[in-house]
Amino acid sequence: MRVKITLAYDGTNYRGWQIQEKPDPPPTIQGAVETALFTLLRTKTRIFGAGRTDSGAHAHGQVAHFDVEERPRLKALDWRKALNAVLPYDIRVISAHLASDTFNARNDALFKTYTYQFWTETTFTPPFLRNYAWACGSLDAQAIRMAIPCLIGKHDFASFKNAGTETKSTEREIFDIALRETTQFAFYPPHSPILLLSVTANGFLKQMVRNIAGFLAAVGAGKADAADAAKILSKKDRRALPNATAPAHGLTLAHVSYESWRFGGGDPYLLKRYH
Amino acid sequence: MRVKITLAYDGTNYRGWQIQEKPDPPPTIQGAVETALFTLLRTKTRIFGAGRTDSGAHAHGQVAHFDVEERPRLKALDWRKALNAVLPYDIRVISAHLASDTFNARNDALFKTYTYQFWTETTFTPPFLRNYAWACGSLDAQAIRMAIPCLIGKHDFASFKNAGTETKSTEREIFDIALRETTQFAFYPPHSPILLLSVTANGFLKQMVRNIAGFLAAVGAGKADAADAAKILSKKDRRALPNATAPAHGLTLAHVSYESWRFGGGDPYLLKRYH
Repeated sequence: MRVKITLAYDGTNYRGWQIQEKPDPPPTIQGAVETALFTLLRTKTRIFGAGRTDSGAHAHGQVAHFDVEERPRLKALDWRKALNAVLPYDIRVISAHLASDTFNARNDALFKTYTYQFWTETTFTPPFLRNYAWACGSLDAQAIRMAIPCLIGKHDFASFKNAGTETKSTEREIFDIALRETTQFAFYPPHSPILLLSVTANGFLKQMVRNIAGFLAAVGAGKADAADAAKILSKKDRRALPNATAPAHGLTLAHVSYESWRFGGGDPYLLKRYH
Repeated sequence: MRVKITLAYDGTNYRGWQIQEKPDPPPTIQGAVETALFTLLRTKTRIFGAGRTDSGAHAHGQVAHFDVEERPRLKALDWRKALNAVLPYDIRVISAHLASDTFNARNDALFKTYTYQFWTETTFTPPFLRNYAWACGSLDAQAIRMAIPCLIGKHDFASFKNAGTETKSTEREIFDIALRETTQFAFYPPHSPILLLSVTANGFLKQMVRNIAGFLAAVGAGKADAADAAKILSKKDRRALPNATAPAHGLTLAHVSYESWRFGGGDPYLLKRYH
């Protein structure tokens, strides 16, 4: 039987999602969850994640699936509680569902939302944000908002892809990009120096969000403008980007959706929710 | 000459504000700032904080003062930049001012505001909040709001004081207590499971905010009510409280004020701001 879990994690102390199969491997999220499963099941169980988050990147709603033997004890198990009892506190299972055997966390995702946090005050970075926001300096939010529409839609995002992972196509469709000032730091009135970027797409190339964040920060700093976005896309070459890849610690995988929300339907893969 | 600094810190890795003068001392905020000053000045410099935050408690706006020799190089120094260059990243100087020689961070404080964060969802605690909020279980915010007025005003708060530090009087004046739902976790719609309590008073007894937070959590859980508040205050005995002291990691020293805001005046102690 197949189990779907939704995970939140603070990626600060991990070398990304993907397990590294080598002697003395560094800590990874996948590795920690597989270790927790081994503690529960006493058998090696592979998990498959929807997105391979980078070293130091975080998640509020990563999704993964794994298979276990269909035994009465395991069918009745509350996987959220059981896993949370053995996982470290910087990784939490938010929810767990029994899924159909055809469910695939990666391939069945209809869209994913990543957020990227900028800290724009130049005099200091709050200790509470040091692992969750990029202290990129002052940004012109209006300039960024003018460049955003150029990136929305179906494009070849080869220019926003770092080398490393080969994919059949570099075309992706971005459904939405939004930039908002968060009220999270109401204790630094009157304006919050936090800008939260969110990007929703049907898929992402390697470090694509971090390259978009880096480009938009360059726009916000006056080093590029909306007109550059189209030129950069058309070059289909990472070297066309004026900026370095934004650091991973500002990035969070916020949500993965399998629901046919555009057609008003529910999630066809979920058979049962564990409470 | 006297320097006033405003500090933000993540207290997770520290055993509170106050330095412990013993061989092999544990890490403290005061100790870390004094070490930073020693790095800059090559001479031992004592700092004096407005509030002695507990082990694991945090600050957005702790205030401290220290004296240094009145030399041209030190008068011109940007203390915020200089200290931030040598402090660990979980302690930041938000601002620094040259103050008058009579300024005392502790004695001259007119009021302080502490916040206390409750996480009220019972199924999991987000990894990002594990060090900043108390996972106290579900709370009835309305019941808490009905009990709050009983604590506001000038009272003998002996029942809300833990043993340890002797003070001349246990009377304090609470100017304001507020409970609000924060929008910080907008990614868990429709309701945020975070309740943020803020308490502003002319002074605080040992662990007074944590005892107030514990009492109000008991009220929110239906184990006490508004009527109990007056009874508990009148007993002037910590044993009258139905609850344990709330854990320190939910607590943050948000703000210390020296400004005669009630009379429309400015801060008389500040001579110069370092930018």
